[in-house]
Amino acid sequence: MPTSVKSVLPVVLLGCGGVGRHLLHHIVSCRPLHAKQGVAIQVVGVGDSSSLLVADDVHSGHCQLFKNPEASGKVIEAATTLGRSTGLVLVDCSATYDTVGLLKAAVDHGCCIALANKKPLTGAYEDFEKLVSNFRRIRFESTVGAGLPVIASVTRIIASGDPISRIVSSLSGTLGYVMSELEDGKKFSEVVKTAKSLGYTEPDPRDDLGGMDVARKVGSLYPSELGPDAMSTKDFLESGVAQLDKSMEERVKAASLKGNVLRYVCEIRSTGCQVGIRELPKNSALGRLRGSDNVVEIYSRCYESSPLVIQGAGAGNDTTAAGVLADILDLQDLFQKMA
Amino acid sequence: MPTSVKSVLPVVLLGCGGVGRHLLHHIVSCRPLHAKQGVAIQVVGVGDSSSLLVADDVHSGHCQLFKNPEASGKVIEAATTLGRSTGLVLVDCSATYDTVGLLKAAVDHGCCIALANKKPLTGAYEDFEKLVSNFRRIRFESTVGAGLPVIASVTRIIASGDPISRIVSSLSGTLGYVMSELEDGKKFSEVVKTAKSLGYTEPDPRDDLGGMDVARKVGSLYPSELGPDAMSTKDFLESGVAQLDKSMEERVKAASLKGNVLRYVCEIRSTGCQVGIRELPKNSALGRLRGSDNVVEIYSRCYESSPLVIQGAGAGNDTTAAGVLADILDLQDLFQKMA
Repeated sequence: MPTSVKSVLPVVLLGCGGVGRHLLHHIVSCRPLHAKQGVAIQVVGVGDSSSLLVADDVHSGHCQLFKNPEASGKVIEAATTLGRSTGLVLVDCSATYDTVGLLKAAVDHGCCIALANKKPLTGAYEDFEKLVSNFRRIRFESTVGAGLPVIASVTRIIASGDPISRIVSSLSGTLGYVMSELEDGKKFSEVVKTAKSLGYTEPDPRDDLGGMDVARKVGSLYPSELGPDAMSTKDFLESGVAQLDKSMEERVKAASLKGNVLRYVCEIRSTGCQVGIRELPKNSALGRLRGSDNVVEIYSRCYESSPLVIQGAGAGNDTTAAGVLADILDLQDLFQKMA
Repeated sequence: MPTSVKSVLPVVLLGCGGVGRHLLHHIVSCRPLHAKQGVAIQVVGVGDSSSLLVADDVHSGHCQLFKNPEASGKVIEAATTLGRSTGLVLVDCSATYDTVGLLKAAVDHGCCIALANKKPLTGAYEDFEKLVSNFRRIRFESTVGAGLPVIASVTRIIASGDPISRIVSSLSGTLGYVMSELEDGKKFSEVVKTAKSLGYTEPDPRDDLGGMDVARKVGSLYPSELGPDAMSTKDFLESGVAQLDKSMEERVKAASLKGNVLRYVCEIRSTGCQVGIRELPKNSALGRLRGSDNVVEIYSRCYESSPLVIQGAGAGNDTTAAGVLADILDLQDLFQKMA
């Protein structure tokens, strides 16, 4: 029984790296499934840092390619034209801060936004405020724990008037993976390279190792002489990171002698946020963590003595892209008229 | 800075037991919070099994009381009038099958539905199909694991084209509580009565103990001579349930001698569903479960080697009501025009 299409979601995708390409693949392979649910995702534009491919006619498949700076103008044009008519979802799968201007303009034109990466939300506070100013039109589930339902759960709990007292988590799939591999006696430099090849890290792994991906102002796992200002990503991976192997090995051993493991933990309370490496008992919930699994414990009035725990794979292009796709679909009611 | 109201959600509440009353309390206490988000929940009617209180004028607070059968007619009238104009959310906090007719009529009139209890979905299959026929207009997160984001997670995973291979869970907060209390050497009859007084059970605890709350055709924890056809809830609690203390004690001891504990586990695969008491190692994930915590493990392509695990309090009137309120708010985009 054919179902009529109830919602058409026009999408412009920014960023065609690992996540963006997986997302396009998922969108195409899910077409029959979404059709059954009466939803159609229509990719009207795909851009990267230098150019934008715009679908002139989604039915014929005819496209035009625009180079920067014209490309950015075309995104704004799509946002202006579609934002308040059919609606538009601007999907950011780039791992940069560079898209913030486009995203803010899109918000001004009534567009929806779906983010794969938290960078646009972690720059200037005014930018953050602007982007979340219409909270129903932005989704960013994949920016925390890939596809894990962390943001959705926190949003639900807050909406129901259940005050959250604290959130304790191991939220970096990359650092979780690195920490548990170190525990197994592997070299730091090898672990970092493997993590990158598995798609667990940002394009420059130092984005993860510096802790900036988890929160501002936290201790970095590398010294400034190995930082982005001092050497390229390539040099860091080929020679820089190996200089850290010995000190990291000693740190892991010292913890192990006390029956502990190293874990990169974030704790948020009303009084502030603490992020960094902690020695934790091997048999604690966080100490038992293996691989790139993320764990989030949410404490509230309803979840006081036993927290709401969400655990699972917190990294990977496939998982992240699946999370972004679920976010896009979660916006469908804004593209649907009352029957 | 006052925010203008973007969505008004008219609500008719059916059922004023523990969950319904908590929900009304939450709706009122969250008014300032929701106002900040531009959402207003407007309770236009509250009913129980015998009568319905209808707000004639939500601003003056003037109400009228209708007795059955007129009360049901008034619910249909509200659904007919509001369903396709302002929209209406019919919220079912009754623990009965009796509301199915009203809910189906509401669906026909374009209303939204939020369920606290799974009973309306577990009667005739045609009823289930009708109720979920417009899947964006029904929410039932609280019917599985109270407020835990189980349905939302499964829906997200399916929507993103990530095929779920199996779900393993301890889903009855009541039976989880009963099993871990038995493990501590308490009498079955005492544990059941305490569970009821804590609001962990259905009004008739045999609804839980019979396994019907988890799935059809599963082993019951009580024999038919103690069933609802043979004695009242009062008689069951006062004298019936104590007859089971000895056999249950022996069963717990037998498991303990093998280093095991009893757990009530449900496993869903594409080939079918298995539900019942299993002896599990004390130190397994499910064996470690304490109190009324629920655990759900979801396995899919993205969550293959390490499942998506959701754990937390899976019962309690407060938690269930908070989940229903979050469900109602999740419908707000259907009550909102594009800017």
